[in-house]
Amino acid sequence: MTGKRKKKINISINPEMPQPEVNDTDVRQDNPEKLSCHTSCESLLSYGSGFNNFQGIFNWSVVLLVLTHVHMSLENFIRYGLLFDPVKIISVFLKDPYKWPAVYLIAASVLFALPAVFIERYLRKVRGSESIGLVLQSLNLFLLVTFPAVMVYRMQAITPAGGLLTMFVYIIIALKLFSYYQVNRWYREGTPRPVRGTSRMQADSSTHQSRRNERGQSKQIMYPMNLKVKDLYYFLLAPTLCYQLNFPRQKHCRQGYIIRRFIEMIFLFHLMLGLIQQWIVPNIHKSMKPINEIESTLLTEYILKLAVPNHFIWLIFFYWYFHSCLNCLAELLRFGDRQFYLDWWNADSVLQFWSRWNIPAHRWLDRHIYRPLLHHGYDKWQARMTVFLLSACFYEYLIAIPLKMFRFWMFFAMAAQVPLACLMKKLFGGNFGNILVWISLVLGPPLMVLLYFHDYYIQHHRRDSSWRLFFF
Amino acid sequence: MTGKRKKKINISINPEMPQPEVNDTDVRQDNPEKLSCHTSCESLLSYGSGFNNFQGIFNWSVVLLVLTHVHMSLENFIRYGLLFDPVKIISVFLKDPYKWPAVYLIAASVLFALPAVFIERYLRKVRGSESIGLVLQSLNLFLLVTFPAVMVYRMQAITPAGGLLTMFVYIIIALKLFSYYQVNRWYREGTPRPVRGTSRMQADSSTHQSRRNERGQSKQIMYPMNLKVKDLYYFLLAPTLCYQLNFPRQKHCRQGYIIRRFIEMIFLFHLMLGLIQQWIVPNIHKSMKPINEIESTLLTEYILKLAVPNHFIWLIFFYWYFHSCLNCLAELLRFGDRQFYLDWWNADSVLQFWSRWNIPAHRWLDRHIYRPLLHHGYDKWQARMTVFLLSACFYEYLIAIPLKMFRFWMFFAMAAQVPLACLMKKLFGGNFGNILVWISLVLGPPLMVLLYFHDYYIQHHRRDSSWRLFFF
Repeated sequence: MTGKRKKKINISINPEMPQPEVNDTDVRQDNPEKLSCHTSCESLLSYGSGFNNFQGIFNWSVVLLVLTHVHMSLENFIRYGLLFDPVKIISVFLKDPYKWPAVYLIAASVLFALPAVFIERYLRKVRGSESIGLVLQSLNLFLLVTFPAVMVYRMQAITPAGGLLTMFVYIIIALKLFSYYQVNRWYREGTPRPVRGTSRMQADSSTHQSRRNERGQSKQIMYPMNLKVKDLYYFLLAPTLCYQLNFPRQKHCRQGYIIRRFIEMIFLFHLMLGLIQQWIVPNIHKSMKPINEIESTLLTEYILKLAVPNHFIWLIFFYWYFHSCLNCLAELLRFGDRQFYLDWWNADSVLQFWSRWNIPAHRWLDRHIYRPLLHHGYDKWQARMTVFLLSACFYEYLIAIPLKMFRFWMFFAMAAQVPLACLMKKLFGGNFGNILVWISLVLGPPLMVLLYFHDYYIQHHRRDSSWRLFFF
Repeated sequence: MTGKRKKKINISINPEMPQPEVNDTDVRQDNPEKLSCHTSCESLLSYGSGFNNFQGIFNWSVVLLVLTHVHMSLENFIRYGLLFDPVKIISVFLKDPYKWPAVYLIAASVLFALPAVFIERYLRKVRGSESIGLVLQSLNLFLLVTFPAVMVYRMQAITPAGGLLTMFVYIIIALKLFSYYQVNRWYREGTPRPVRGTSRMQADSSTHQSRRNERGQSKQIMYPMNLKVKDLYYFLLAPTLCYQLNFPRQKHCRQGYIIRRFIEMIFLFHLMLGLIQQWIVPNIHKSMKPINEIESTLLTEYILKLAVPNHFIWLIFFYWYFHSCLNCLAELLRFGDRQFYLDWWNADSVLQFWSRWNIPAHRWLDRHIYRPLLHHGYDKWQARMTVFLLSACFYEYLIAIPLKMFRFWMFFAMAAQVPLACLMKKLFGGNFGNILVWISLVLGPPLMVLLYFHDYYIQHHRRDSSWRLFFF
């Protein structure tokens, strides 16, 4: 059809203006046809023109987006004035300035990690103690998961923010120790068990064997020389969930880099809190009912109103946590592997997004759950489903317990990712897939958090004076 | 600095996840170092990573833009309900359903164009009558410009929309006749004057000379065979301001194309009016003071609030007029040259924008003002300034008279384009220039129209019942 049409009308695309030579009298006299200034051609936006340069449209959308939000900020400022108050933020973490339950709990987490080294040393020494070791390790991990949950759920003095932080630290340590135990078992299985009494000697010889690695940075440690408290605590501090004996290290610690990341951390943290105080809270305050009692049109409007600031805060949080915080920590520890995220913004499916936005968690799930499951004969989709169900449990655990509300929205949202992704993959792909990922990113995960936050806020806004102190 | 840093930390960019082979026990036993899963590399958003694939960001901005405006529409709908009423639109064009002053005036414009053919025929016949011809032509053009201005300004029955339409038709005809006179003079200067009495013969012979053009579409007309009423009226109807003897023509008129363009015309026209009624008018109604009495913060908020819908309406108007209407008209007349606009959305300076968004006007100004001025020895910037001052006069004329308000905002805005463009060109360029063009497009021209519209509306909203009928 297009070809047929093209033949009929003799399309000639000339992006530059035809320049008739009308200012030359000689030309006019020689050939009056040169006075013409029209040639046959299609409009650029016509289907047949073949024109597809719309670079400016990107700038257009950015300009409109910025202007729209400048307007919204100004409108917000005119209506509410300046609500941002960094001092009030302290009350989110502390109810009583003389009781710091979250800090004590986080400090205690260090002790829960300590047994790991001794369990591993014991397993290294005593032959046939694998089953005892497994029991001890499971007990250690079980305590790491249940202790903070019970404490946060039962303690009245702890705030949701403090509780979330505590739970987060404990679950990170649990995941790290899981990796630590598994990697050390791989080494035990891979190297011959030492004869009793010669272990000291062999350990010495393995130290002698340690050599400079290919980058000439530092000496390589061999198993079992890694079973030291110092080595474990470096791993616990390092911005990764996967244990390995010799992490890539930098020679130097760049001070300018640390300062830049630190300034980003401070600034973005206050920006996030400012956006919450200035933009989200007044909107939540306006709608003082639980989600299920609101009329559907108003609910849609309400969700859309909160989705955008929520999404911005999520984006800032992403940069703040995965770029500023983790890079700052890595630089301080001279930790070389900075792959904390990949280009999830280009992901064209939900699964690709999940495998790119949080690389430490993705790598842990891939190395310690997905691949071992494949190795034990499960198929790809079973392994993938297990990974997502496990993530769903982690998310629900992290959110439900500090808020003391079990809604299971987060759990079902995460569990629905795999079937949803299968469906999407069959229907859409490429650029359209990327658009769908963005739509679900804007409306999905931040909204999940919002659903909890909204209900919590509605439940507590009259009872709890510290909330009122923070928000109004 | 970057090179130095790169050397220090041994950057290795691996966009794909490292896949440690942990599920193979043999590999573990052979080489325990393969249990590592970390390699030294920078974060993608770090300056040193060299990563620059942000394709997804375009989708992100489009998704956010759409969501923001879906939310705003919903909010608007909840607050105001459905305000759009196509029947009320008639009152914008007609005050009294039995008096159609704009229609009579537009019909009369056809008669004002008629003398052009006879003046040209007279000039062709009578030697040395150039000065008389010039007087007659000037009189004709002067009448075309002043008659509608006086009529629209004095008549009480005419609405601003009707007045604008009338003025627009008259000025288009005036520009077309200016081109018609000038092109015919070029031909007279270029071809030998016929001996008295032989003109009829020569005209016949030139008809015999007329031959099929290179596309084999139709016979080419030679001067003075073009001096016919039919030829003039084809030019007056054709979607161009520049006269030439033989316009590129299509062989066939594509009916499907016309129907598509016609549906677009109807739909987009109602969309524009709907947006005005639903989005702009309620906002204007809220601020019931003249611009100069509003507080500056509120004024900024007000301008930003109106800039976005204004800009959308301008964009729709652009597509409606330059793509749908002009293409539909061109297809009906089998007019071949569809270059009504170029890719102004990629323009990286204001001057480039002006030379791309309205090609009929640009071509006319270029062919009949800019190049003749250059030919008469004026320099580039003088000619350019003249062109912009002339455009400024046209715009002011088109807006001030139907609204019966002389504010000269439009005039100064247009006149400021050239010095502004010089300044911008020195400071910015390329992609940043394009962003500036978009910013001035969003905040500039539509706002100019708005300033007039606002003041007019404020002046008339109590007195004039037809406005109230339309808007509330």
